Amino acid sequence: MNISTPTLRVGLAGLGTVGAGVWHRLASQKDLLRQRIGTEIRVDQVAVRRAERAREIGVPESHVVSDWRKLVANPDLDVIVELIGGTKDAFELTQLALQNGKHVITANKALLAERGAELFATAQKHQRHLLFEASVAGGIPIIRALREGLVANRILSIHGIINGTCNYILTRMNEAGLEFKDALAEAKQNGYAEADDSLDVDGHDAAHKAAVLAALAYGFWVPEGQLYTEGLRAVEKQDIIYARKLGYGLKLLAIIKTDADGAVEVRVHPTLIPQSHVLASVNGVFNAVLVRGDVVGDTLYYGRGAGGDPTASAVVSDLAQIAAHFPQEQKARNVGHEALHSRLKTMDEIVSRHYLRLQVVDRPGVLADVARVLASRQIGISSVIQPEAHAGEITPLVLMLHDAPESQLQAAVLEISKIGAVKAPPVHLRVEDFE
Amino acid sequence: MNISTPTLRVGLAGLGTVGAGVWHRLASQKDLLRQRIGTEIRVDQVAVRRAERAREIGVPESHVVSDWRKLVANPDLDVIVELIGGTKDAFELTQLALQNGKHVITANKALLAERGAELFATAQKHQRHLLFEASVAGGIPIIRALREGLVANRILSIHGIINGTCNYILTRMNEAGLEFKDALAEAKQNGYAEADDSLDVDGHDAAHKAAVLAALAYGFWVPEGQLYTEGLRAVEKQDIIYARKLGYGLKLLAIIKTDADGAVEVRVHPTLIPQSHVLASVNGVFNAVLVRGDVVGDTLYYGRGAGGDPTASAVVSDLAQIAAHFPQEQKARNVGHEALHSRLKTMDEIVSRHYLRLQVVDRPGVLADVARVLASRQIGISSVIQPEAHAGEITPLVLMLHDAPESQLQAAVLEISKIGAVKAPPVHLRVEDFE
Repeated sequence: MNISTPTLRVGLAGLGTVGAGVWHRLASQKDLLRQRIGTEIRVDQVAVRRAERAREIGVPESHVVSDWRKLVANPDLDVIVELIGGTKDAFELTQLALQNGKHVITANKALLAERGAELFATAQKHQRHLLFEASVAGGIPIIRALREGLVANRILSIHGIINGTCNYILTRMNEAGLEFKDALAEAKQNGYAEADDSLDVDGHDAAHKAAVLAALAYGFWVPEGQLYTEGLRAVEKQDIIYARKLGYGLKLLAIIKTDADGAVEVRVHPTLIPQSHVLASVNGVFNAVLVRGDVVGDTLYYGRGAGGDPTASAVVSDLAQIAAHFPQEQKARNVGHEALHSRLKTMDEIVSRHYLRLQVVDRPGVLADVARVLASRQIGISSVIQPEAHAGEITPLVLMLHDAPESQLQAAVLEISKIGAVKAPPVHLRVEDFE
Repeated sequence: MNISTPTLRVGLAGLGTVGAGVWHRLASQKDLLRQRIGTEIRVDQVAVRRAERAREIGVPESHVVSDWRKLVANPDLDVIVELIGGTKDAFELTQLALQNGKHVITANKALLAERGAELFATAQKHQRHLLFEASVAGGIPIIRALREGLVANRILSIHGIINGTCNYILTRMNEAGLEFKDALAEAKQNGYAEADDSLDVDGHDAAHKAAVLAALAYGFWVPEGQLYTEGLRAVEKQDIIYARKLGYGLKLLAIIKTDADGAVEVRVHPTLIPQSHVLASVNGVFNAVLVRGDVVGDTLYYGRGAGGDPTASAVVSDLAQIAAHFPQEQKARNVGHEALHSRLKTMDEIVSRHYLRLQVVDRPGVLADVARVLASRQIGISSVIQPEAHAGEITPLVLMLHDAPESQLQAAVLEISKIGAVKAPPVHLRVEDFE
């Protein structure tokens, strides 16, 4: 080894699956990385609560501290990798590390979604990097693509399948005809869903990632509670079947878009997309992000969105980005400085096509009643599916509607749900045609 | 404008579609770029042979020179963008510019494939950047993904659909049932193929790009003439139909792979791929590159591979990469320093499954004759399609074969072609199962 090779000294906070992955990969790829970037990346200290865990992973005892505060106070470290999770300690850790003049790398999308504005202000003030490639879509280098590869583009829209658990569930509902609860149980059995499934299945994880992508694209952090989020629990197997009959697949999409006036929409919900669209063929636990730029047009990025190794790959790429120029100081690149005229649209303003499934008593006049409500709100019907049924039976009535603002649609749904022949809360899904 | 904003001064050589795109986009995105990277990117001089062209594009007369030699000799320029094409002048321009201490950005894959080793040696010697994001897959940031996003990975394989013309032709043969020559004519009508079609249709353009990807992945330049290249001319509509019956789609693939011993294979040819594979759904003029890394697993990058605007987007991203740290000097990152133990496999050594279509006289014993030849060379048959025919008629006989080395297969094909009942040169396509 060349004695003059500079060394980037890393403190690793947290030794879960991703932390262990980072530790192992920095060891196994040590020569490769030094060769590629001309700098050695060396983990000098690891903060982990259970010393036993460090032994399991093979971290030498001399490297281990139990309190992350020791890590951020260590003047010999250049970078802290935050992998402790949660948003309370992780926030404090990140703030203190930046204030102490250290770069920080994090995989923590919840932290960024909730406290990103403050954290990037601190990073900017102290001229330190706060990098987060691992926070969205695991090993897919989507953050780098947005910041660097597409730097010449105004981002017109982003459509992302960014929760592997939900995509696995929808894939199994589609391919094996499972109901939601059975697909979820299978996902848990296969280790694709946590015991506490709400973060994934109710769309919160995807919403955190959508907030990160929106900040990158439009330079502001969607205030908590203002990012419309809807998960999978209302989706039934029959909705996937009807969608297919109409030429659509069903995905949990994060949608981030701007219009000509610079108003921005950010939302996460189950969405019908044309079966022929490339996103419709993204199956299982895979993630994909489709980006439309004003110069480049559509580009798409696909890969595994989670798991220790893919996420470690992203963390190491952030370390390499800092190391590649080390020890030279680099300009820290901020997130959130482009929000000159951006305005977040409310959900009420959003216009899209809609899918409605009603459970109705099969008797004359029901469709007419429903159609009248829709017409009174200027909502056009583009197709109807009503399976054969015997008079008086309860049967699904599926309607595909033309473009309508969410506020009108919601008002119509409320009114429809009060029609006597409508026997269950209407299922409402939005449609995205990528026009 | 802040008076202290540093300015990166650019010389633009060539004002074709891409050059014009770069000129326009640097103008239209000027504020956006300054905001994002903190440096102004300014084209100070443009070399173009026809002054009239400069007027059409709106380049001020004061900026225009007719000889690129003036550009590379101009001490006030920091970067030269080489878009003159060809490999003779472009080589000289790039060499001189690097020697004169300028960074160079090029979209010229032919230049890199033929002279990359020399050019990167010059760049290394003079510690200047030679960037080439636009050389492969247009606006898709695949070079950056390989160099930076996947820096933590040893690259196990790359599979690329990297020629839009060929992919358009194969898509139309598949979807509209066209024969090759009709699909090619249609591609020309729609502006997706040049009048001189050989560069695209015979696979040379894809081979140039494959050489660039291989150099990035494995650090050496495949010597000219040693990159196995086969285009589309032998493919008939019926091969696409038979492939589909067997569960496969047909794509012109660039395949770059390493084995456990570090031997590398690089080849371009029409390839059968499983219909369910995500690459099989890449249609029309779109490009896609699938990368398998040892840490991250599979990631895929998709978008438009050609056209003035997508390519300009990539050129501008290279300019931004230099500008982001400007005027600080950065370590120039070389291509070609990882070739420690790499060895290029000859085509004879390559093992894959194979598809054979023979035109045979339908008479008893033909299949037995063919099977005997294959068996004598230890090549197993996995399936056979032989359409119903009348005795004595000429009919296709389609065979799907198990893994066999190319040398054995070629010898078998030669022998089979000499069987009396075999009435035309056998059509041979390779199969890729992504295992």
